Amino acid sequence: MKFRFLTLFFTLLGLPAEAQLEWMQVAPGVWKAEVGEAESIKPLRVAGVEPRTDALQQLGQPVFPSQLDKSAGETLDGKTYLRFPLTREEQLFGLGLNFKSVRQRGTIKHLHVDHYGGRDDGRTHAPVPFYVSDRGYGILINSARYLTVYAGTAVRKDSSDPPEERDRNTRKDWDASPYSDAVEILVPAAGTEVYVFAGKNALEVVQRYNLYCGGGVLPPLWGLGFTQRTPTLYTDRDVLREVDEFEAKGYPLSFVGLEPGWQSHAYPNSFVWDKGRYPDPAGLVKKLVDKNIRVNLWLNPYASTKSPIYRDLLPYTASHTVWVGVVPDFHIPTARELYKKLFLEQHLSIGVSGYKIDETDGYDSWLWPDVARFPSGYSAEQIRQTFGLQVQKMTADWFRERNQRTYGLSRASNAGASALPYVLYNDYYDHRDFITALCNSSFIGVLWTPEARSSITPEEWLRRMQAVCFSPMAMLNAWADGTKPWSFAEVAEQVKEVMQLRMQLLPYLYTTFAQYHFEGKPPVRAMYLMEDGQKFGQEIRDQYMLGDFLLVAPFFAGEKSRKVILPNGKWYDFYTGTLVGENTTITVGQETPDRIPLYVREGGMIPLVAKPLLTPPGQSDNLPLKIRYYGTEPSESRIYDDDGETFAYENRAYSWSKLRVTKVGNGTLAGTVETPSGKPFRYAHITWEWMVK
Amino acid sequence: MKFRFLTLFFTLLGLPAEAQLEWMQVAPGVWKAEVGEAESIKPLRVAGVEPRTDALQQLGQPVFPSQLDKSAGETLDGKTYLRFPLTREEQLFGLGLNFKSVRQRGTIKHLHVDHYGGRDDGRTHAPVPFYVSDRGYGILINSARYLTVYAGTAVRKDSSDPPEERDRNTRKDWDASPYSDAVEILVPAAGTEVYVFAGKNALEVVQRYNLYCGGGVLPPLWGLGFTQRTPTLYTDRDVLREVDEFEAKGYPLSFVGLEPGWQSHAYPNSFVWDKGRYPDPAGLVKKLVDKNIRVNLWLNPYASTKSPIYRDLLPYTASHTVWVGVVPDFHIPTARELYKKLFLEQHLSIGVSGYKIDETDGYDSWLWPDVARFPSGYSAEQIRQTFGLQVQKMTADWFRERNQRTYGLSRASNAGASALPYVLYNDYYDHRDFITALCNSSFIGVLWTPEARSSITPEEWLRRMQAVCFSPMAMLNAWADGTKPWSFAEVAEQVKEVMQLRMQLLPYLYTTFAQYHFEGKPPVRAMYLMEDGQKFGQEIRDQYMLGDFLLVAPFFAGEKSRKVILPNGKWYDFYTGTLVGENTTITVGQETPDRIPLYVREGGMIPLVAKPLLTPPGQSDNLPLKIRYYGTEPSESRIYDDDGETFAYENRAYSWSKLRVTKVGNGTLAGTVETPSGKPFRYAHITWEWMVK
Repeated sequence: MKFRFLTLFFTLLGLPAEAQLEWMQVAPGVWKAEVGEAESIKPLRVAGVEPRTDALQQLGQPVFPSQLDKSAGETLDGKTYLRFPLTREEQLFGLGLNFKSVRQRGTIKHLHVDHYGGRDDGRTHAPVPFYVSDRGYGILINSARYLTVYAGTAVRKDSSDPPEERDRNTRKDWDASPYSDAVEILVPAAGTEVYVFAGKNALEVVQRYNLYCGGGVLPPLWGLGFTQRTPTLYTDRDVLREVDEFEAKGYPLSFVGLEPGWQSHAYPNSFVWDKGRYPDPAGLVKKLVDKNIRVNLWLNPYASTKSPIYRDLLPYTASHTVWVGVVPDFHIPTARELYKKLFLEQHLSIGVSGYKIDETDGYDSWLWPDVARFPSGYSAEQIRQTFGLQVQKMTADWFRERNQRTYGLSRASNAGASALPYVLYNDYYDHRDFITALCNSSFIGVLWTPEARSSITPEEWLRRMQAVCFSPMAMLNAWADGTKPWSFAEVAEQVKEVMQLRMQLLPYLYTTFAQYHFEGKPPVRAMYLMEDGQKFGQEIRDQYMLGDFLLVAPFFAGEKSRKVILPNGKWYDFYTGTLVGENTTITVGQETPDRIPLYVREGGMIPLVAKPLLTPPGQSDNLPLKIRYYGTEPSESRIYDDDGETFAYENRAYSWSKLRVTKVGNGTLAGTVETPSGKPFRYAHITWEWMVK
Repeated sequence: MKFRFLTLFFTLLGLPAEAQLEWMQVAPGVWKAEVGEAESIKPLRVAGVEPRTDALQQLGQPVFPSQLDKSAGETLDGKTYLRFPLTREEQLFGLGLNFKSVRQRGTIKHLHVDHYGGRDDGRTHAPVPFYVSDRGYGILINSARYLTVYAGTAVRKDSSDPPEERDRNTRKDWDASPYSDAVEILVPAAGTEVYVFAGKNALEVVQRYNLYCGGGVLPPLWGLGFTQRTPTLYTDRDVLREVDEFEAKGYPLSFVGLEPGWQSHAYPNSFVWDKGRYPDPAGLVKKLVDKNIRVNLWLNPYASTKSPIYRDLLPYTASHTVWVGVVPDFHIPTARELYKKLFLEQHLSIGVSGYKIDETDGYDSWLWPDVARFPSGYSAEQIRQTFGLQVQKMTADWFRERNQRTYGLSRASNAGASALPYVLYNDYYDHRDFITALCNSSFIGVLWTPEARSSITPEEWLRRMQAVCFSPMAMLNAWADGTKPWSFAEVAEQVKEVMQLRMQLLPYLYTTFAQYHFEGKPPVRAMYLMEDGQKFGQEIRDQYMLGDFLLVAPFFAGEKSRKVILPNGKWYDFYTGTLVGENTTITVGQETPDRIPLYVREGGMIPLVAKPLLTPPGQSDNLPLKIRYYGTEPSESRIYDDDGETFAYENRAYSWSKLRVTKVGNGTLAGTVETPSGKPFRYAHITWEWMVK
């Protein structure tokens, strides 16, 4: 009655009534609606997503989430207003790469590409306008604008499920955040696309999102090893000496990163080698690749007057500079071509394996201002929201054209990034918050590394190095500090141990990333993405799953003990196979001070390389495999393999091998590996280790 | 050459060339330009400013600041882009009520009405889009939008005074914040008005701004006394007992504030008295007014279903609620009339003297969302930016119609507020930052109180009470904590002393506010507003001028000593008359631990009431006056008076009396007071105190 009355009034006052959204199915379990007229620059388009329709098909055909039937949208004065109903107790995740919180209901986000500034307010490296509900759906706003999202804070006077009115004078339960029954979003543009992804639980929603965005990235195998970024003014000899030192000391190394000093002029960038520090770049890269060690180059995209492309590029740059470098407008083909030609000639053609792309995020004062004009005519806002994505896509395509996988670093991203071979990083360096960011990355199709850089104490160093070894990129970013893995003698052995474990885990990690690519399951997963859709009463932001089986619960410096939440099912200590609990919270402490707490769920099979690896395996190396089994009952699992370097896996040149544990005579367990014939499989000498006694 | 080349390119690419602004003089020393089509809802219009053309005339006829000849503006895709040139070494002030910094060049502000969140990023209670240059001009963007201001951070590639390009690899002076030669502003609307205010120095610019905005507010005399806000659930008897206690203990009291419990239902508000706690509101108010003590009422503007106006108001409210209260759209006359009728009947007609208007600022989650719709058709953004202003103006007009001055509290304001009888406050409660906010308030035509509320230690209590007594509103806001001035026995006497000093200083304070009204000089002034336009090498944010003569340098809890910067001219200790320095920095410490450091400049005359006052003087009271003189040479000054309560001063019913110190026989000083006849002047028994021995 009240609702009708108000609607009538609003209509009389000339306000448009809100229209229900018209959903069109675009893939199994994926629907799209357009409100107003969507702008041509959209994150999914910039990211170049190509939905994996076959995989989406396989994931099933869920019905449209009925809760969203009453979603509404309208455009008004050049802006788009969106509303999506919520139910009581519903939880929301996502809404950008957050660092302090995982559950996002009750928050307001101003989604804005930026360096993370210490608040989960939407300003972050990947302000992906996508949220996932534990009711089994996700909503994506495919807009390149600064969106404002009221994730269950806005209260309408015509709500059908309104909060109670209370007198603060007399009611102790007066609430400064009254119940809100909707997510509402303001898009500062006259239209947008909206996507709904359905799923039987949050994980399936995320899978569908990732598959729609092209499937998660499958990095080259070497990308999952250990990477050291060298001090900025290192010469080629310094780099070689450092590589030798890793080998001599027994620390694994998979790729090295060269920082600004590789360039003849940097910040702004010449993009060409410094002839003094690097007289023979091709020779250096070859020497390293011959050792199975790849080379990654730092850069930011802003060109110096000293760059050979400067003159030709100038007309295709923005009105404003970044750190005195001109800003290419990559919507102009000529700008893209100038970069491509130079980068192929200088870097890719001599064997460089990837890039670390800096300064695409902010802060505001370290990027072009919103008043900048771009020759393509797109606004500074739109370009800021998608520039990181665009540079990822552009550079990834160069490698793809060479049938060479890359795996690099980026400081900015947005929706649609799942398939892009880049890992996000920043300078924020709060260890706890870095882990929370890992949890959050899993909802929004991005990868994140809690890089290690420097530390105050040996203990902190160990904790940071441990955690980064259980992340998408195991990186020591020593560009400014020059820290080595062994810099803290007190923990040098423990650091070596975890780095070696990382390298040994390559088969497990690679299989986990293959799940990301083929099934959309993120490699790192917040606990809310457990396959059984388990609900948790508390916020969990300091532990996560790595793949299907490994629960990672890092220690932080100064901690004598920590709590670990063990979900449904039996959980075993990774190192010892001891049963530690089941649907409970345990406290772990002094018993394993040197190791990062890791737990494996019942039935978990962890394939490891059975020998220490100092560098990633070559394409034709046969590797001995040990499969650790955590459980007492028969179980099945899989291991993935391919050539590790090219895109041949897109043409079925890969193998999923079945790992099978069965019971044989008198209850003993036995394991088998069933590998499809004629497919890549690099493992030999397979042994099983029965972890549960 | 380069510039032309680029302009040509931009033109070829279809980008509009920037247009120079066309300035039209609108008052002496004030120019206006319109870019695109300005929107109808503008801060100056909402504030209802009526320029004081006579006073502007008197201030002189400066020429247009030539530096701004090359200002530019254009509209593009529904947004307005503005640019104003800067010169090297130029300093900027203003850009909203900041709490941590005073000099704003090199900052970026997202001007947004909000509760201050600990960062000078533009989100603040008064995000006034006005900045003042020490080169003698000020620029106001008269827009009700969320503006983004790049105050000397944006660097153009076609700059005529560009920053040097440096190689970070080799140059130690590489700069992450390269020199920028302009302020650039993005207005997210298809047009705006821009004002330029000229002046021979920053002070004169601010004067012109304030005079254009109607002249600063002249509060009722009682408004400058001491105010105690009582605990929220106090009854009428509690209030009377508290008032008696102030009198019995000898603590002055000028007005009391009643907090939410005066209402029958609050948060959301009924706006009517609670019959249980306040059975006879008229009787209570009369009892207090008979003692010369006024009554101020807390409220926020959001209506409860329990309010008698709810039903009639409902159609004229926003789509969304604030703390479950409906949000009136005061652009609809009916909404204004409903409030006026109820408020006059319930409050003004029984003698209530003013309001404390809460929750008009934010945070985002404590206000309507940007997706809210208002029946007037204005956007939630525009209404948010001006709601605080609008409620100030609306309520002030009610009092004006009764020929009664009011003086209240507001949490939100914007451009054009100079003449509005409200002081800003918040809950942020950082004492140092509260003082920095005092400095900043002086540039942007708002008043601010660093309220005292509670403290951890007696020392902190003393420091807070001292500072608030040298601010536009000497307030103890005890609504939640119940703190009394004497709550900390260890400092109860020192607190009493500073409260008494505040009351004694009424003639000086009232004269200082008269300067605000008649000349536009803010009562509190950042040091950068010294009349001689003195430049300072360092940022000064913890001391300020109160009126022409008093330099206030508060101690903060935990400080054993502090530095005080003494500008040009001789400075004397307020209490002793001792010469303390001249154009120097002194350290003050243990010599006056009980008193707030106060300094008077050479020639300063401080008129005080020569007896302790426990309540503000009645309209017909004659007061004994003592004039303290700090100096050794002849000098002149003034003292202002009027009836202290009505608007008769607008019809010349006021007096400026000349205070004159001359040398008589053998170098002795003598003082005279020359009062115009037939004008209000409440002082008698004038004595002079020669502070410099």
